[in-house]
Amino acid sequence: MSDFKNWLNLPPKAIDKKSAEIALARQGQLTKPAGSLGQLEQLAVHLAALQGNIPQADHVHITVFAADHGVMAENISAFPQSVTAAMIRNFASGGAAISVLTKYLNSSLDVINLGTVTELETIKGVQDQKIAHGTANFHQQAAMSEAECEQAILIGQQNVECCLQKGIQIYIAGDMGIGNTTSASAMSCALLNLPASQLAGPGTGLNAEGVSHKATIIREALLLHKSHLDSPLAILRYLGGFEIAAMVGSYLHCAKTGLPVVIDGFISSVAALCAEQICPGSRQWFLFSHHSAEPGHSAILQSLDAKPLINLGMRLGEASGAAVAIPLLRMACALHNQMATFEEAAIAGANNG
Amino acid sequence: MSDFKNWLNLPPKAIDKKSAEIALARQGQLTKPAGSLGQLEQLAVHLAALQGNIPQADHVHITVFAADHGVMAENISAFPQSVTAAMIRNFASGGAAISVLTKYLNSSLDVINLGTVTELETIKGVQDQKIAHGTANFHQQAAMSEAECEQAILIGQQNVECCLQKGIQIYIAGDMGIGNTTSASAMSCALLNLPASQLAGPGTGLNAEGVSHKATIIREALLLHKSHLDSPLAILRYLGGFEIAAMVGSYLHCAKTGLPVVIDGFISSVAALCAEQICPGSRQWFLFSHHSAEPGHSAILQSLDAKPLINLGMRLGEASGAAVAIPLLRMACALHNQMATFEEAAIAGANNG
Repeated sequence: MSDFKNWLNLPPKAIDKKSAEIALARQGQLTKPAGSLGQLEQLAVHLAALQGNIPQADHVHITVFAADHGVMAENISAFPQSVTAAMIRNFASGGAAISVLTKYLNSSLDVINLGTVTELETIKGVQDQKIAHGTANFHQQAAMSEAECEQAILIGQQNVECCLQKGIQIYIAGDMGIGNTTSASAMSCALLNLPASQLAGPGTGLNAEGVSHKATIIREALLLHKSHLDSPLAILRYLGGFEIAAMVGSYLHCAKTGLPVVIDGFISSVAALCAEQICPGSRQWFLFSHHSAEPGHSAILQSLDAKPLINLGMRLGEASGAAVAIPLLRMACALHNQMATFEEAAIAGANNG
Repeated sequence: MSDFKNWLNLPPKAIDKKSAEIALARQGQLTKPAGSLGQLEQLAVHLAALQGNIPQADHVHITVFAADHGVMAENISAFPQSVTAAMIRNFASGGAAISVLTKYLNSSLDVINLGTVTELETIKGVQDQKIAHGTANFHQQAAMSEAECEQAILIGQQNVECCLQKGIQIYIAGDMGIGNTTSASAMSCALLNLPASQLAGPGTGLNAEGVSHKATIIREALLLHKSHLDSPLAILRYLGGFEIAAMVGSYLHCAKTGLPVVIDGFISSVAALCAEQICPGSRQWFLFSHHSAEPGHSAILQSLDAKPLINLGMRLGEASGAAVAIPLLRMACALHNQMATFEEAAIAGANNG
């Protein structure tokens, strides 16, 4: 087998149940009624289990994977395709939402260009890893060749490898690619065997007519590729995008090596679902940040048994929802690690506790 | 009229609609699809309207008001009454949840003791403003005299006055008082004309039998004081607590002087409801942080038309839920103030925008 196939077949790292037990016991001793910090308690215990240690979320890394989509030829987005390249410049110059959030969180940020239609100059802060000038139009042919898909997955894997070497504690991947909700919706239809009408949504701002057209394009593409969509990897290659494949690669490597991931919104959750189907059990390494306003997100979350931390009607992508959830992780860790126990504070427990 | 009555009659400060319009226009120009940051956009616009300026949430102040409750004689809590005093020590020594969160947020913290049953030594970091050794048992008599209730309200008012002088941008008040969900539930029954069975809940951890007993005590107290519960101020005096009255006073002064408040959970929302009924229009100065796990919270939130930012199953009090929401405010401000506009980033807008 190739190195790639060998790596794909590696199982996810096992979580540390002992650390979870220790963390759970500690939560019961902290100076608060049992359970009164709600999901923040479960989050601290879950992180402890993943990290095999006291939970920590200081060193957070964010990568935005960006690429263009051939299916844009079918007129499925409210924004022109040139915006992908322009937003890459905006990420690097500090003006995008994720740039502002990265600064607020004091996180590290990688912006990786996997292939835009617009030729990009060399930009400080942008890694040029161009595979092609966008994917092919999946309404006509496979979005990627096998080699292209593998290349994109490995770019994600390598990004995580760098993070592991830097001592990152929490990994986040975000997406930028005009047209990519069409690609992600098509993938999720195939991964979950659900109709396009349920999973196509407005994306960056289509009206009802636009959403209906988008669903038709997806339905026709699913029919065209029907005989090939027999594995999650094939679904990714035929219907996905370079940035989605890179996210899948990064999530798989996080699960295999044991780096906790905070999942962003719709695109990110579809990549997580694909990773889970490629390598079952990966999902336990994924923490879900927010419930996207994109209507198809609910079905994806349900299939992954995921209850995101926040629901603020966000639908931007770029890892913005995952970034917004990071302070919750950090506060969960601070509370877990720094609160006094009943014994330390010499406080009587509950009468019926 | 007395100074107190004159102050009570002052209207809430008007919000700045012009600043809201400017903020809303800016949100439409930032490099993201319109509305894609969801509630974070509305939050920035709302803060701009309240602050009459660009929205800011750097200087946050948290006050925990603590006091004991005479109704504890009726056996309505899972924790012994000595915990109120012990937790005051814990706030000051840094071991409580709100101590940890205050440090994380780099906020200022006041801990104000309005009267515990246990005599407290002088503690660094605790303001001794004792009114009495807890309220009277409202199952037998009025919880407070008129003078005690006024004194507690004015302690809250004075606390906000200090914050205004220090340039605080966001005010938070939290509560500590074993037994105070019984008091707050009774108040909300009277304020909303709803039955005790709907508003009594487990508090710090009562079982079903305990909740039923608590509802009975509340029902009997409402019957006893029926003829006196003819104004929100009377409801506060007959059924409230010193710490709840101080919260009402602080919220009223924030609304009258124009300092935005982040409301915490159940107790805090009942104080906000009482403040709104005393001084209609105050509510527009209140931002709601979280949906408490205490079942009665839903009815209070609904009556105030409030949609909290987070819902993490928290039910601790101490201002902990409000504190946990602060990073969302700060990120909303950072995004609003620091993102590039489409024009600055030279990016084309939406085709159908």
